[in-house]
Amino acid sequence: MVFGNLSDDSGTGVAFTRNPATGEKGSYGDYLDRAQGEDVVAGIRNTMSLVDMSKKEPVVHAELERLMKRLEDHYRDLCDIEFTVERGKLWILQTRVGKRTAEAAFRIATQLVDEGKISMDEALLRTSGDQLAQLMFPQFDLSAKRNLIATGIPASPGAAVGEIVFNSKRAFDLAKTGRKVILVRRETSPDDLVGMVAAEGILTSRGGKTSHAAVVARGMGKTAVCGTESISVDEKQLQFSVGDLIVREGEVVSIDGTTGCVYLGELPVTQSPVTSYLEGTIKAASNDATPVVKAVDRILQHADEIRKLYVRANADTPEDAKRARTLGAQGIGLCRTEHMFLGDRRTYVERVVLADNEGEQNAVITEMQPLQQADFVGILKEMSGHPVTIRLLDPPLHEFLPNLATLSAEMATAEALNTSISPRDKAIFAAVKRLHESNPMLGLRGVRLGILIPELFKMQVRALVLASIEVKKAGFDPQPEIMIPLVASQRELLYLRQGLESEIKKTLAGNNIAIPIGTMIETPRAAITATRIADYADFFSFGTNDLTQLTWAFSRDDVESTFLPRYLDLELLPFNPFESLDQDGVGLLVKIARDQARAVRADFKLGVCGEHGGDPRSIHFFHNLNLDYVSCSPFRVPVARLESGRASCLRVKSCLRLI
Amino acid sequence: MVFGNLSDDSGTGVAFTRNPATGEKGSYGDYLDRAQGEDVVAGIRNTMSLVDMSKKEPVVHAELERLMKRLEDHYRDLCDIEFTVERGKLWILQTRVGKRTAEAAFRIATQLVDEGKISMDEALLRTSGDQLAQLMFPQFDLSAKRNLIATGIPASPGAAVGEIVFNSKRAFDLAKTGRKVILVRRETSPDDLVGMVAAEGILTSRGGKTSHAAVVARGMGKTAVCGTESISVDEKQLQFSVGDLIVREGEVVSIDGTTGCVYLGELPVTQSPVTSYLEGTIKAASNDATPVVKAVDRILQHADEIRKLYVRANADTPEDAKRARTLGAQGIGLCRTEHMFLGDRRTYVERVVLADNEGEQNAVITEMQPLQQADFVGILKEMSGHPVTIRLLDPPLHEFLPNLATLSAEMATAEALNTSISPRDKAIFAAVKRLHESNPMLGLRGVRLGILIPELFKMQVRALVLASIEVKKAGFDPQPEIMIPLVASQRELLYLRQGLESEIKKTLAGNNIAIPIGTMIETPRAAITATRIADYADFFSFGTNDLTQLTWAFSRDDVESTFLPRYLDLELLPFNPFESLDQDGVGLLVKIARDQARAVRADFKLGVCGEHGGDPRSIHFFHNLNLDYVSCSPFRVPVARLESGRASCLRVKSCLRLI
Repeated sequence: MVFGNLSDDSGTGVAFTRNPATGEKGSYGDYLDRAQGEDVVAGIRNTMSLVDMSKKEPVVHAELERLMKRLEDHYRDLCDIEFTVERGKLWILQTRVGKRTAEAAFRIATQLVDEGKISMDEALLRTSGDQLAQLMFPQFDLSAKRNLIATGIPASPGAAVGEIVFNSKRAFDLAKTGRKVILVRRETSPDDLVGMVAAEGILTSRGGKTSHAAVVARGMGKTAVCGTESISVDEKQLQFSVGDLIVREGEVVSIDGTTGCVYLGELPVTQSPVTSYLEGTIKAASNDATPVVKAVDRILQHADEIRKLYVRANADTPEDAKRARTLGAQGIGLCRTEHMFLGDRRTYVERVVLADNEGEQNAVITEMQPLQQADFVGILKEMSGHPVTIRLLDPPLHEFLPNLATLSAEMATAEALNTSISPRDKAIFAAVKRLHESNPMLGLRGVRLGILIPELFKMQVRALVLASIEVKKAGFDPQPEIMIPLVASQRELLYLRQGLESEIKKTLAGNNIAIPIGTMIETPRAAITATRIADYADFFSFGTNDLTQLTWAFSRDDVESTFLPRYLDLELLPFNPFESLDQDGVGLLVKIARDQARAVRADFKLGVCGEHGGDPRSIHFFHNLNLDYVSCSPFRVPVARLESGRASCLRVKSCLRLI
Repeated sequence: MVFGNLSDDSGTGVAFTRNPATGEKGSYGDYLDRAQGEDVVAGIRNTMSLVDMSKKEPVVHAELERLMKRLEDHYRDLCDIEFTVERGKLWILQTRVGKRTAEAAFRIATQLVDEGKISMDEALLRTSGDQLAQLMFPQFDLSAKRNLIATGIPASPGAAVGEIVFNSKRAFDLAKTGRKVILVRRETSPDDLVGMVAAEGILTSRGGKTSHAAVVARGMGKTAVCGTESISVDEKQLQFSVGDLIVREGEVVSIDGTTGCVYLGELPVTQSPVTSYLEGTIKAASNDATPVVKAVDRILQHADEIRKLYVRANADTPEDAKRARTLGAQGIGLCRTEHMFLGDRRTYVERVVLADNEGEQNAVITEMQPLQQADFVGILKEMSGHPVTIRLLDPPLHEFLPNLATLSAEMATAEALNTSISPRDKAIFAAVKRLHESNPMLGLRGVRLGILIPELFKMQVRALVLASIEVKKAGFDPQPEIMIPLVASQRELLYLRQGLESEIKKTLAGNNIAIPIGTMIETPRAAITATRIADYADFFSFGTNDLTQLTWAFSRDDVESTFLPRYLDLELLPFNPFESLDQDGVGLLVKIARDQARAVRADFKLGVCGEHGGDPRSIHFFHNLNLDYVSCSPFRVPVARLESGRASCLRVKSCLRLI
């Protein structure tokens, strides 16, 4: 036992071999003379920095510096050290590898490489996709004056500012008028969905990372701070209180979903420098590049060098495609053509649905060809030299028509008021009723649509072929791929493929552009009969979102807002299978299909499109299955690049399993 | 070459060793003197019966009889013989085993057994479940005077009588007023659904066994005659014509879905004697028992002796249970408790949904316990000595509430007319909106409901336990089983099981009644992780209907009325996977789960509940997998008994496959 409180030349302190917050080099810590260990943290007296200590106790400080260097050399990492000085003699009480922020993790990793202490592989393994994601979210400018009033559980990352409201209806109404709101609730329930959608962020006083608010917010990519127990919400009085402070509806707060901090008033939000770098507005070599940017750049580059998985993006527009390229996407793994049927183009779908006969219907469809072609041209140019997987129309047609309940109400009102209903509206109402499905996810969509209305897919294929010819003539290198959704049996794929192949041949008119035709594997049947489907597919892309929905009988929209949070609380599910792949169930189907496909052709091309492609744990699973690529939202591309790099230099077996 | 037209003592004929229509013993056929083979069928002159022939040509006839006996002894079956007589000398031209009606099949099979020509096993194999089903449908009394005007494709069996209508709206309106209608269309489309539901039967002039009308009618168990090409339908003039005959809307027709016959006017419908026997109103030993009844009785008895599969019924009421027992069910494999929440009891569900807090909610649920108990008492008594599998509440709660679109319209009307809306209606509307799901099949139902509202399942279990005690005290032998629907993972089953087991123990209060707890295997994930689920299940029951829906991403309600008929026409599907099991896909999942469960316990109890349990081809598949039982609708029980018997005496590998 040593005593730091014996004399003036006694004391105790905590030291870090580098700054655990910023990763800056140079020792960092606190010292308190005439004190014992706990006094430092207790904060009874103000501590002095190690610099001040060096003036007061130069000899001891020099000794401490020597030992800190020795410890770091031994651990080859940031060390967190507790020490005591007794009558001018230094005693090290304990040390461990120190915790650090995301920023520090990247900076320290590269510093240690430069100091020859660790390899680039090790540096890569000491960072993570989650840390990179943290660095990418917009951040509050913490240099600004700020008033921290509470800290909750960081449930869904991001920085959100807005006036507080205490019920969903109000949130929805205000948001409609263009105001930015933060929805504040004791806890949220399915009734709050509309308000959560409308709000900039969600703040709750109850519930943890698996509460309804947290799960739904993450699903929407909304900022959320949950379980902020220090605030007590009074939904009747439309106010919450923290200690004596009372914050009323309409007052502005700023919530940080990455740290859990809740500030009173508006904090300036700054784009993260790492995101600026990833989006190409800051070059890593330039002077405006902060140290963390340079560190991220080096580590990402290494990840790119060693990773086996290609990383593609899910992008539906030329803009998305451009952004994806800048973020490092090596192609588009999923281009959803349904987004090209929205907006003004809904009218075309309406006419397709209302057409009296097939001839009329085909005529309308053909009208859409030039528009579709223009869409493809833009995307293929942006992705010149990289594969672009075009998924043929997937959703049921009624998704492009007005909602049945809404329309029923409108019609009823019109009837009640004897206002005349136009024949067209009548016709649309009839069509909506006719096309209504009890379970649209399991109904007339994807490949089925292509078989029932052959002209639809043929038009899309013609548009793609013509776009490719046009782009190639313009001197670009288009690499289109056609992907058929929702296939469940060999026969339907074969039937459709034959039709499309002849359409391609006709439209190519001698031009030489290879257009592989693949299929999504998103029905359990496709997965377990993959050996037969592989005969007629040039590639598979696993739609792990739908595959999860079908394997579990989970309609994502429905379950995430109803029982899934309860399941997570009860630990019936250790994690949300839509955020991270269920390896024992859905993953098993992926493995079965992988084995069958690679048995048919050893080099059978296999990819994943769907959010799991951007989830670290899932990426390691896909890497270990030797898939060829993952495709995720552009924003997740850097994360996928980093994690597939990590997977390559160490086959990290993911531990958290779902039995 | 022999000549039947040389002289008066020459002729030609066709003979059957037994009556191929009724199966009656004794030779049967037509003879035509001074004629060549084709003249008999051509019908240029009236033929004479073999009896008349025996008077005209006694010697030749005797020789024919001798040879007919010899041929039948050789083939050990009904023979169809073509012969010619040349100048008093008999020449046999050709013979083959003759085609026969369902009735004849059963009668001839038992006759041959009595004559020592074949074994009971062979007799059983010479009949089929489809033939038995044919004999069970109500039939037209063909002794009545009848006017056959056309014959189409027998698309969905049964006998239906009604006035013809040419559009669905009219069919619906008339049916509402209690009139019986036959919907007549060129061909049907999804728009005709409402009319098809309302009609007694459907008659179309186009399309075959896989047309929309045929598939949907079979799905509904509705009589249908399709592709009746001799009639031309004029939907504008509201009439159809056959040759010169014109039949107008409102006139009555009788259609036979078993034979395809279309009669003008009303034919009396008689219940089939076989059904009367199976339902116990005719005893096989009694004098009113027709020969076919006696034959069916003997063959069914043999099937019962040798079959390995137990046959249970899906029954939800004491009446169904009683009927099922009479039809030979050895228990109930699926008792759907949701049917006990309909009618007046909807109000309870409404109150459960509208309850302000959990306490209030539980109170309402507990109120239902005595009703639920009474339901169970009746069923357990009827099935005394046989297992009764009670499936806990499966469907989503909103299925018991008004439809969203309808309600929206009502509310809109009320608002438009400024008629006041009761707070209760407002509350219900809000609840319906809140509970609305985009894909109810994949939403909050089954095991999930039991976990989110624990009191619901606990109440059902208490009711079952108390009912069992009551029934046992009354001297019966209750054998209740509890089945949990929609399980997808081991954890949720374990969690729920623990809660229910303690509830059972508490409620049994020392009474000694064993109540096994099993689970349905109806999600793909349950099937592929069966080895883990088996740890906490006393039995599996495959819900092959939902398993088919999830494996294919087919919502039965939606797909059968939209693209499935087209798929069948294009032979993308060789058969409807809801009528007969898809052995390569869904069947593979069943096999995987079977293997895993039996690896956990060699005697693990496995059953099938769902229509496939009554489908001949599927039954052979389940038999070959060594499952313990199939459960089907009471009406299919005799078919299942016969087919599982056939499967036992010959492992008929079903040939028609779906790759």
